[in-house]
Amino acid sequence: MLFHVEMVVKLPPDMPAEQAAEIKAKEKAYSQELQRQGKWRHLWRVAGSYANVSIFDVSDNAELQELISGLPLFPYMDIQVKPLCRHPSSVRDDDT
Amino acid sequence: MLFHVEMVVKLPPDMPAEQAAEIKAKEKAYSQELQRQGKWRHLWRVAGSYANVSIFDVSDNAELQELISGLPLFPYMDIQVKPLCRHPSSVRDDDT
Amino acid sequence: MLFHVEMVVKLPPDMPAEQAAEIKAKEKAYSQELQRQGKWRHLWRVAGSYANVSIFDVSDNAELQELISGLPLFPYMDIQVKPLCRHPSSVRDDDT
Amino acid sequence: MLFHVEMVVKLPPDMPAEQAAEIKAKEKAYSQELQRQGKWRHLWRVAGSYANVSIFDVSDNAELQELISGLPLFPYMDIQVKPLCRHPSSVRDDDT
Amino acid sequence: MLFHVEMVVKLPPDMPAEQAAEIKAKEKAYSQELQRQGKWRHLWRVAGSYANVSIFDVSDNAELQELISGLPLFPYMDIQVKPLCRHPSSVRDDDT
Amino acid sequence: MLFHVEMVVKLPPDMPAEQAAEIKAKEKAYSQELQRQGKWRHLWRVAGSYANVSIFDVSDNAELQELISGLPLFPYMDIQVKPLCRHPSSVRDDDT
Amino acid sequence: MLFHVEMVVKLPPDMPAEQAAEIKAKEKAYSQELQRQGKWRHLWRVAGSYANVSIFDVSDNAELQELISGLPLFPYMDIQVKPLCRHPSSVRDDDT
Amino acid sequence: MLFHVEMVVKLPPDMPAEQAAEIKAKEKAYSQELQRQGKWRHLWRVAGSYANVSIFDVSDNAELQELISGLPLFPYMDIQVKPLCRHPSSVRDDDT
Amino acid sequence: MLFHVEMVVKLPPDMPAEQAAEIKAKEKAYSQELQRQGKWRHLWRVAGSYANVSIFDVSDNAELQELISGLPLFPYMDIQVKPLCRHPSSVRDDDT
Amino acid sequence: MLFHVEMVVKLPPDMPAEQAAEIKAKEKAYSQELQRQGKWRHLWRVAGSYANVSIFDVSDNAELQELISGLPLFPYMDIQVKPLCRHPSSVRDDDT
Repeated sequence: MLFHVEMVVKLPPDMPAEQAAEIKAKEKAYSQELQRQGKWRHLWRVAGSYANVSIFDVSDNAELQELISGLPLFPYMDIQVKPLCRHPSSVRDDDT
Repeated sequence: MLFHVEMVVKLPPDMPAEQAAEIKAKEKAYSQELQRQGKWRHLWRVAGSYANVSIFDVSDNAELQELISGLPLFPYMDIQVKPLCRHPSSVRDDDT
Repeated sequence: MLFHVEMVVKLPPDMPAEQAAEIKAKEKAYSQELQRQGKWRHLWRVAGSYANVSIFDVSDNAELQELISGLPLFPYMDIQVKPLCRHPSSVRDDDT
Repeated sequence: MLFHVEMVVKLPPDMPAEQAAEIKAKEKAYSQELQRQGKWRHLWRVAGSYANVSIFDVSDNAELQELISGLPLFPYMDIQVKPLCRHPSSVRDDDT
Repeated sequence: MLFHVEMVVKLPPDMPAEQAAEIKAKEKAYSQELQRQGKWRHLWRVAGSYANVSIFDVSDNAELQELISGLPLFPYMDIQVKPLCRHPSSVRDDDT
Repeated sequence: MLFHVEMVVKLPPDMPAEQAAEIKAKEKAYSQELQRQGKWRHLWRVAGSYANVSIFDVSDNAELQELISGLPLFPYMDIQVKPLCRHPSSVRDDDT
Repeated sequence: MLFHVEMVVKLPPDMPAEQAAEIKAKEKAYSQELQRQGKWRHLWRVAGSYANVSIFDVSDNAELQELISGLPLFPYMDIQVKPLCRHPSSVRDDDT
Repeated sequence: MLFHVEMVVKLPPDMPAEQAAEIKAKEKAYSQELQRQGKWRHLWRVAGSYANVSIFDVSDNAELQELISGLPLFPYMDIQVKPLCRHPSSVRDDDT
Repeated sequence: MLFHVEMVVKLPPDMPAEQAAEIKAKEKAYSQELQRQGKWRHLWRVAGSYANVSIFDVSDNAELQELISGLPLFPYMDIQVKPLCRHPSSVRDDDT
Repeated sequence: MLFHVEMVVKLPPDMPAEQAAEIKAKEKAYSQELQRQGKWRHLWRVAGSYANVSIFDVSDNAELQELISGLPLFPYMDIQVKPLCRHPSSVRDDDT
C-alpha cells in the first residue's frame, strides 16, 4: 500500500555541526536500509530546497507510523502524508 | 528530468454529464499515451479525493509546459509543480 | 485499518430543492449501509455546521477511495483524509 | 456531550531527554485515567506524525477546559476543538 | 452553556431583491425569537462588514446545531463556532 | 463603544515558573480592575485553549490601544481586534 | 476617530457593462460626497489592482458601519477594517 | 523603475471560445506593444500553469497602474505586485 | 510617489529591557526625522497591537528600500509594502 | 533553462554581528561569481524587505539544486522555486 510523504527538514541553525552530521549520517543509513527492503520505494530531492518527496510501500497505517516516527530527523521535520492508490488511467502494473 | 505534479480536478457541478464523460475519456487517452512514451512516469490517485500525484519525465521546462497545458482537463484543475532531482541518499539508479 | 475523514457539504444555493432532497436521501441510504457493514465506523455532525467527522474502517487505501468517491454528495464536498493507527496510550482493545 | 480534539505535540528540540520522558509518562498516565473514566472516549495516533485525534465525552464546556488544560503536554501542543453531536444519518445508538 | 459564533453572510449577488428581503425578514424574526428566549444571548454587528458576532446559551451541542442549522440564512453563511466557559479572572456572576 | 478582542497566550516554555506566576497575577488584577470599571465588559475562556474572547467598552480607539498595550501579558499574546456596533436585529437595549 | 479600510472590488465578470457603469458612477458620487464632508479622509488606489486603501474619520463604530454598508459597491467588495489611533512617534498634530 | 508582477489567468470555463480567443488576441497585441516600448521588460510563462512572471519598467506607480489596469485580461486575473530595486550584489549595469 | 507600509514589531521576549529601550529611542528619532523631511508622510498606530500603518513619499523604489532597511527596528519587524497612486475618485489635490 | 527563485533572508537576531558579516560577504562573492558565469541571470532586491527575486539559468534541476543548496545563506532563507519557459507572447529572442 502506497503513501506519499513530503518531508521538509528544519534543523535549528545553532545545532553543533558535529551533531548535525551525526543525525544526517544516521538518517541516510536508515533511509537506505528501508529503500533496500522495498518499503521506501522512491526518494527524490525537491530542487532548491532541503526537502524530499517520498513514496512508501507499507502493509498498513501502523507500519507507516513506525517507519516515519523512527526517522532520526523526525523531530526536525515538517511531514505531510497522503494515502495513494491505483489511478484508473494508470498503465503500469507494478506501480501500486 | 523529473517534475512532481499534483492535480486537483474541479469540474463545475452543472457541466452536462455527457460533456464531462467526453473530457474524461480524452484525458484518459492523453494520459495513457504520455505514460506509454515514458513522459508521464508515475500516476497515482490520492485516496479519498478527485486528485492525483504524478511524476513527469521531460527534457526541459518548455516540454513540461507543453504537456500540462495540453491536458484536456487543464482548464478545470488546480495544478502544483515541483522540480525534482536525485536525492543524495537514494539507492536506485533508475529513479532520476 | 482506520481513516479519519472530514466532509464539508457545499451544495450550490441554486440547486432545485427536489434534486437536493434526492441526493441527500441517497447519501443517507449509502451511509447507513456502510455503517451497518462496519466500514463507516463513526459518523458525527460538527455542531453549528453542515459538516461531519467520520471514522472509516477499510482494508486498504483502494477501498477508502472506492467508498468515498462513491458518496452521492462526493461532487459537492470538501473532504480531508488522515490515516489513523493505534495510539500507544490507548487503553481500548477494539479501537483500531 | 462529545468534542473532537486534535493535538499536535511540539516539544522544543533542546528539551533534555529526561524531562521529555517524564512529561510523556505523566501524559500517558493522565490520558489512561481519563480513558478508564470514559471521559476520553477515543484516542488515535495520526499516522506519520506526532499528533492525535481524540473524542472527549464531557458534561459541559467547563469540564472540557478543565481536562484539556490539565494535560501535562498542554504547554507544548497545538490543540483544535470542535463540538460534535448526533448525525441524523447515524445508525449507532451509543455514539453520542 | 455558552458558544461563540461568528457568521459572515454571503448572499449571491444575483439573488432577486425580493427573495433576499424575504430571507432577511425571516432571519430577523427567528433571531429575535431566540434572543427573547435567552438562547441567543448577545448579537453584535462587526462594523464595516456583513457579519456578526454572537453568543449562544444552549443546553448542549445538539441544541446549538439545531438552532444554527435552522437559521434562514444558514445556506448563505460562513459560520465558526467556539465553545466558551467561565474565565478564572472573570468578576461577573451572570456571564456563563 | 464596543470592541471584540481575542487573545491567545503564548508564554515561552522556558520562562521560569515564578516569573510566569507573577505576570499572570498582575494580568488578573489588571483585568479585574478594568472589569469593575466597566471597560472590560465580558471575558470568556475559549474551552480547550489558553485563549480568551473579550468585549471591551471604551470611549475611542485610543483608549482601546491604551488598555490593551497595558496588559501585563501583552508581549506574549496574539491579539485580534474587531470593532462592534449595534446589530439591527438585536432586541437588547443595554448591549452596545 | 480614524479607521483604516482596504477594499478589493470583485465585480462578477458577467455583469452587464451598463449596470457596472451605473454602480461605479454611484460609488464615485457617494465617495466624493463623503470626502467633501471630511469623513473619508484619504483614498488611494493600490497600483496594479482594482483595490483601494482608505482612511475614514468617523465619530464611532456605528457611523463606520453606516458609511461602509452604504457603499454602492458594498455587495461586491472584500473589506478589511483596522482601528487606528495616534502613534507615539507621530509629529503631525492633524493626523488623528 | 522596476516592478515584479505575477499574473494568474482565471477565465470562466463557460466563456464562449470565440470571446476567449478575442480577449487573448488583444492581450497578446497589447503585451507585445508594451514590450517593444521597453515598458514590459520581461515576460515568462510559469511552466505547468496559465500564469506568467513579468518585469515592468515604468516611470512611477501611476504608470504601473495605468498599464496593468489596461490589460484586456485584467478582469480575469489574480495579480500580485512587488516593487524592485538594485540588489547590492548585482553585477549587471543594465538591470535596474 | 506614495507607498503603503505596514509594520508589525516582534521583539524577542528575552531582549534586555535596556537594549529594547535603546532601539526604540533610535527608531523614534529616525522616524521623526523622516516625518519632518516629508518622506514618512503618515504614521498611525493600529489600535490594540504593536503595529503601525505608514504612508511613505519617496522618489523611487530604491529610496523606499533605503529608508525601510535603515529602520533601527528593521530586523525585528514583519513589513508589507504596497505601491499607491491617485484614485480616480479622490477629490484631494495634495494626496499623491 | 530558467527558474524563478524568491529568497527571504531570516537571520537569527542573536547571531553575532561578525558572523553575520562573514556569511553575507561569502554570499556576495558566491552570487557574483554565478552572475559572471551567466547562471544567476538576474538579481533584484524586493524594495522594503530583506528578500530578493532571482532568475537562474541552469542546465537542469540537479544544477539548480547544487547552486541553491550551496548558497552560504541557504540555512537562513525561505526559498521558493518556479520553473519558467518562453511565453508565447514574448518578443525577446534572448530571454529563455
